[in-house]
Amino acid sequence: MALIVKKFGGSSVATPDKMRAIVNRVLKGEQPGDKIVIVVSAMGDTTDDLVSLANEVTSKPIGREMDMLLSVGEQISIALMAMAFQEAGHKAISFTGAQAGITTSSAFNKGRILDIQPDRILNALNDGNIVIVAGFQGITDIGDITTLGRGGSDTTAVAIAGAMNADVCEIYTDVDGVYSSDPRVVPTAVKMQEITYGEMLEMARLGAGVMQPRAVEMGSRFNVPIHVRSTFNDHQGTMIQEAYSMEIKQYMIRGVADDKNVAKVTVLGIPNKPGYAYQVFSELADKNIDVDMIVQSVRVANEGETDITFTISRSDLIAAKEVLDHLCKELGANNVLIDDKMAKVSIVGAGMAGHPGIAAGVFGVLGENDINIEIISTSEISISCLISEENVEKAVKAIHARFFDEH
Amino acid sequence: MALIVKKFGGSSVATPDKMRAIVNRVLKGEQPGDKIVIVVSAMGDTTDDLVSLANEVTSKPIGREMDMLLSVGEQISIALMAMAFQEAGHKAISFTGAQAGITTSSAFNKGRILDIQPDRILNALNDGNIVIVAGFQGITDIGDITTLGRGGSDTTAVAIAGAMNADVCEIYTDVDGVYSSDPRVVPTAVKMQEITYGEMLEMARLGAGVMQPRAVEMGSRFNVPIHVRSTFNDHQGTMIQEAYSMEIKQYMIRGVADDKNVAKVTVLGIPNKPGYAYQVFSELADKNIDVDMIVQSVRVANEGETDITFTISRSDLIAAKEVLDHLCKELGANNVLIDDKMAKVSIVGAGMAGHPGIAAGVFGVLGENDINIEIISTSEISISCLISEENVEKAVKAIHARFFDEH
Repeated sequence: MALIVKKFGGSSVATPDKMRAIVNRVLKGEQPGDKIVIVVSAMGDTTDDLVSLANEVTSKPIGREMDMLLSVGEQISIALMAMAFQEAGHKAISFTGAQAGITTSSAFNKGRILDIQPDRILNALNDGNIVIVAGFQGITDIGDITTLGRGGSDTTAVAIAGAMNADVCEIYTDVDGVYSSDPRVVPTAVKMQEITYGEMLEMARLGAGVMQPRAVEMGSRFNVPIHVRSTFNDHQGTMIQEAYSMEIKQYMIRGVADDKNVAKVTVLGIPNKPGYAYQVFSELADKNIDVDMIVQSVRVANEGETDITFTISRSDLIAAKEVLDHLCKELGANNVLIDDKMAKVSIVGAGMAGHPGIAAGVFGVLGENDINIEIISTSEISISCLISEENVEKAVKAIHARFFDEH
Repeated sequence: MALIVKKFGGSSVATPDKMRAIVNRVLKGEQPGDKIVIVVSAMGDTTDDLVSLANEVTSKPIGREMDMLLSVGEQISIALMAMAFQEAGHKAISFTGAQAGITTSSAFNKGRILDIQPDRILNALNDGNIVIVAGFQGITDIGDITTLGRGGSDTTAVAIAGAMNADVCEIYTDVDGVYSSDPRVVPTAVKMQEITYGEMLEMARLGAGVMQPRAVEMGSRFNVPIHVRSTFNDHQGTMIQEAYSMEIKQYMIRGVADDKNVAKVTVLGIPNKPGYAYQVFSELADKNIDVDMIVQSVRVANEGETDITFTISRSDLIAAKEVLDHLCKELGANNVLIDDKMAKVSIVGAGMAGHPGIAAGVFGVLGENDINIEIISTSEISISCLISEENVEKAVKAIHARFFDEH
């Protein structure tokens, strides 16, 4: 007897046939006394179609009306899913975000969940229903409909699981778990049985795409075990949780991630005085441009000037260039250099903290493969190296081989 | 300065272009200080498409989930309409039935409006918004979404106008008002400037299709003037209201309506004893079969038996036949005769009450045209005759000519 929250994404509910497949699977796996909450996204391309419709009407839709429009997608899915369960002979009921008691901030298009009052969900479960909840949406305190932005349905599922103290939140995806690296790049990548919230967050931050960091953070905050598994088979997936549940063989490194959405920016010849570096980064922050790795180097030949190199997302390049060109003049810097053919390769693992040899191992592997490291950054549970984009696959394979294949 | 509720149906908002046309028209007609509430239906075929989707999932959708699904159609319309007004530079905001404060009974698919609390609408109007409200939907006291059934959007518009004490509720349709008869059948049909709620209700009941009786009843209850007018031009339409606003030429007869959805049923040889007729009609009522005109005739040759003839909708024929065949055996009646090629032609007018000659005029016209009258029924403001379907057009034209063309 367990309380289980299951989340199915848009491709899993894209057609009535696929919905029936989910119904069969859920009912087959149901144990006597289980209470099941299902969170679904909009069917297939519904959201894109709605966005196109809005674009036919206006080039600059206001957030509130966009959310009024987009929330419809999940509402269609929940109604049809409830009908599919009823057709299969099981009691079921659908709830919008509002009916599920999900209150969010009034930041339209990117609402944050402030509170969940799951009374109606609980009552419906106690009445023997499978409860279907619309992902990706909530309601403000004055009753406006909001959507949660990217990864919204995962966040809904984990938040409900947290609010109801569920035994597990199952996230069904098109991969069957979290791998030590992208299996399409590294054929020997291994599926992890378990991973900690911290490691998963670091993997996500560093480019591994399985789950949005938001949902993982929510899981960490409420200590909800998240089971990432396949929509298409019954295999055990990967459990994301606070700590390892058993004495599994402790890999020092849990995964190798890469991120190709990286550009390197260098501002040359900034006067080497206090406050100048601050001004660069504060003006970038004002434009919502995230800066990742940073290196500042004083010139040996001219101690009065310094060069600052950092990385940003490639999508922010145009906006950053504008800020920096203007700043160059103001600060009297010499020039701005941009390289948009860079990438970041990272290793992640909570076990590496006590093993200083890991970093040396990474650098050694890259050196053996003639891959130049431009910047290095580290956290307690990760090491990242900025390298040329053309070397990414080689680097990921070599690092993965060094730390996984030898075991 | 006026408070005006305008309702646009599904064909009027079928595409973004048509929505823009409405926006232009509304803004062009806006007077300084006007407060405007717009009620819209789902775009074009949206509702049909949603029904098809449900049918792919289940053959017997549960009402609650069907309403969860169908209410989406109006939600899409209101979001896009609000965007269209915003794009045109006017403040606008959309409200679902729930947000508009519309509480209904929990009779899914045919909810009745119990209460409207228009606080949010009022506040938004006072903030300078044009307010767009989803027609056809409301919410129960526990927060479930309901739809209102046929004519739902008209009912929403009139109910909001009533709750807000609006100056007028404008219903935009594909005809430019209420005519004395169907202009496709009677080319000389005249558009009425004014008609009373009672006359309009009688016209609708007797087969004139412009407005659903529900919305007219709502208008009558709250004394909201309803202006039925064209989506496509600016002509004055027909005002439905409590009484005539001026000394217009008082037609005794306001309109000629016909209804071809009529079947005549005769039960032969019922024992002529008290309670037997009651049993026939109560068992039909139990099956939700509406009986309209009724004639009971005692046979001259056999006073122990009676024949009962009545009319029902053709769509109820199969269900009625089942009830009656069974009853025939039980009551010892002889036989059930059915004629599904009948029709009803009616004249309506509050002015006819004091003019007994009107009925004679109608019967005379039909007689002159060799049209046999099978049953006659009358109300205070109408006279209806059951005739053969093949004679309907001839009858409507002849009656219309008799009472309108002579003036």
